[in-house]
Amino acid sequence: MTSHHIEILSVGNELLIGKIANTNAQWLAKRATTTGMSVNRITVIGDDVYEISKIIKEALRRRPKMLIATGGLGPTFDDKTLEGIAKALDQPLKVNREAVKMIEETYERFLKEGRVDEKIELTPPRLKMATLPEKAQPLHNPVGTAPGVMIRADHMTIVVFPGVPTEMEAIFDESIQPLLKKMVGNVTFYETSITVSGVMESDIAPLIDKTMNDNPYVYIKSHPSRSGEGKPFLELHLSTTASDPETGKKKAEQALVQIMELAQGKGGIVKPKKSDQR
Amino acid sequence: MTSHHIEILSVGNELLIGKIANTNAQWLAKRATTTGMSVNRITVIGDDVYEISKIIKEALRRRPKMLIATGGLGPTFDDKTLEGIAKALDQPLKVNREAVKMIEETYERFLKEGRVDEKIELTPPRLKMATLPEKAQPLHNPVGTAPGVMIRADHMTIVVFPGVPTEMEAIFDESIQPLLKKMVGNVTFYETSITVSGVMESDIAPLIDKTMNDNPYVYIKSHPSRSGEGKPFLELHLSTTASDPETGKKKAEQALVQIMELAQGKGGIVKPKKSDQR
Repeated sequence: MTSHHIEILSVGNELLIGKIANTNAQWLAKRATTTGMSVNRITVIGDDVYEISKIIKEALRRRPKMLIATGGLGPTFDDKTLEGIAKALDQPLKVNREAVKMIEETYERFLKEGRVDEKIELTPPRLKMATLPEKAQPLHNPVGTAPGVMIRADHMTIVVFPGVPTEMEAIFDESIQPLLKKMVGNVTFYETSITVSGVMESDIAPLIDKTMNDNPYVYIKSHPSRSGEGKPFLELHLSTTASDPETGKKKAEQALVQIMELAQGKGGIVKPKKSDQR
Repeated sequence: MTSHHIEILSVGNELLIGKIANTNAQWLAKRATTTGMSVNRITVIGDDVYEISKIIKEALRRRPKMLIATGGLGPTFDDKTLEGIAKALDQPLKVNREAVKMIEETYERFLKEGRVDEKIELTPPRLKMATLPEKAQPLHNPVGTAPGVMIRADHMTIVVFPGVPTEMEAIFDESIQPLLKKMVGNVTFYETSITVSGVMESDIAPLIDKTMNDNPYVYIKSHPSRSGEGKPFLELHLSTTASDPETGKKKAEQALVQIMELAQGKGGIVKPKKSDQR
């Protein structure tokens, strides 16, 4: 594992029954990758203390720099992520005064904004959102109530976000993105793609091999799909990391030109997919 | 682990960089759940032989009834799923004659349908799609070229589908769905949901506890989201398994009535979400 590896953990039965697609993991993976980190595993498990605890211990053995978890921070009985983490790290769960303060401030804001009609009392389900593993640090939630959570565990930083996408995204951008940026230093990710029609993937395969051999820092992956007419239709996705965006772009485009020429030589019709560049 | 547990494994760098959402895993999770199976883990890893081999060994220790993998069956250098499985199971990779026959038949069909202009030769990248772990059995692919693959390993059946959704879905429905149905026998899954607005999730939490306590076979999960006005807005999702659809429906609706009454008692505005029933 290099020091830029992270893992993503999604907690929620709704993902295991296929009720929703795991768009949170996709959003986090994209953000982490464009920041220059490398995601090497995404795991989805249910709302189960034992399962959560087990996966935390497994991740610790794989030594990623960071484990980003989403889901299971709310006030209901099946929000069990912090209980699972506490169990894995052998830390007691305690009411965190800073987290209590954050929740009280959110409720005061709700009252001021007219989103609730009267002062909200800190009932047990609400206090649950401020009950964290002993050494955890709460992260300000600019959108909703449950604070995010950060805990150091051996060589790994565990970060937990609520499962509501707007809350997760806001906490990530405010508290975690700057941290990742500092971790990676000068690394940028560059990607681009083209589509090739009229050539079979099995005929493109050796051309990709050759291009990747000639451009060792560029990764090329082909994604087959079927066009309306049933003719072969492929997307070729090129990506690379570099110390600055310009170098990344240059490296990827050199490979792009080569694979385009090779594919056209096989009779392929090549089109750039401009929308994918970033 | 009960005998109805399965795991899903998605192989592909495109998932780890957030290029696409893992809709294959969602589709499989939904299908498996409605068949009466229980998905207890979904893992996403990259196109890496060592990683694939490692996750297969991990899954074997967790003893699910079946591991359903997608991706990495194609003709390109980075289609490594079978190599990883062969390594984990300590089986050599060999050209499978039945798989060769399937691929030849597909190519003949392509020629007959005018999708290609001349007879397709079995080049090395094409033979790669018929090179399987020694004890594997190919599964007919009604849509594309690469056959699906099935291998028994200890107590677990490993099934591998191509990552192209139409191909995965067609092989699943033709070869695996009947197998799962036989495994579970008379078990059906029933789900329904309602939306509750005007009550905070932290006020609903104790009502869910009570309803689940009174209806021990029904699982209720709340999914908070924000409505346009910023007022609290919740979806409550109820699910259960039963030996027949009627019993499942009856059990879930009994709980539904109770939680609706309790939520209304707290001032909530309750609406059924008919579209979610199945």
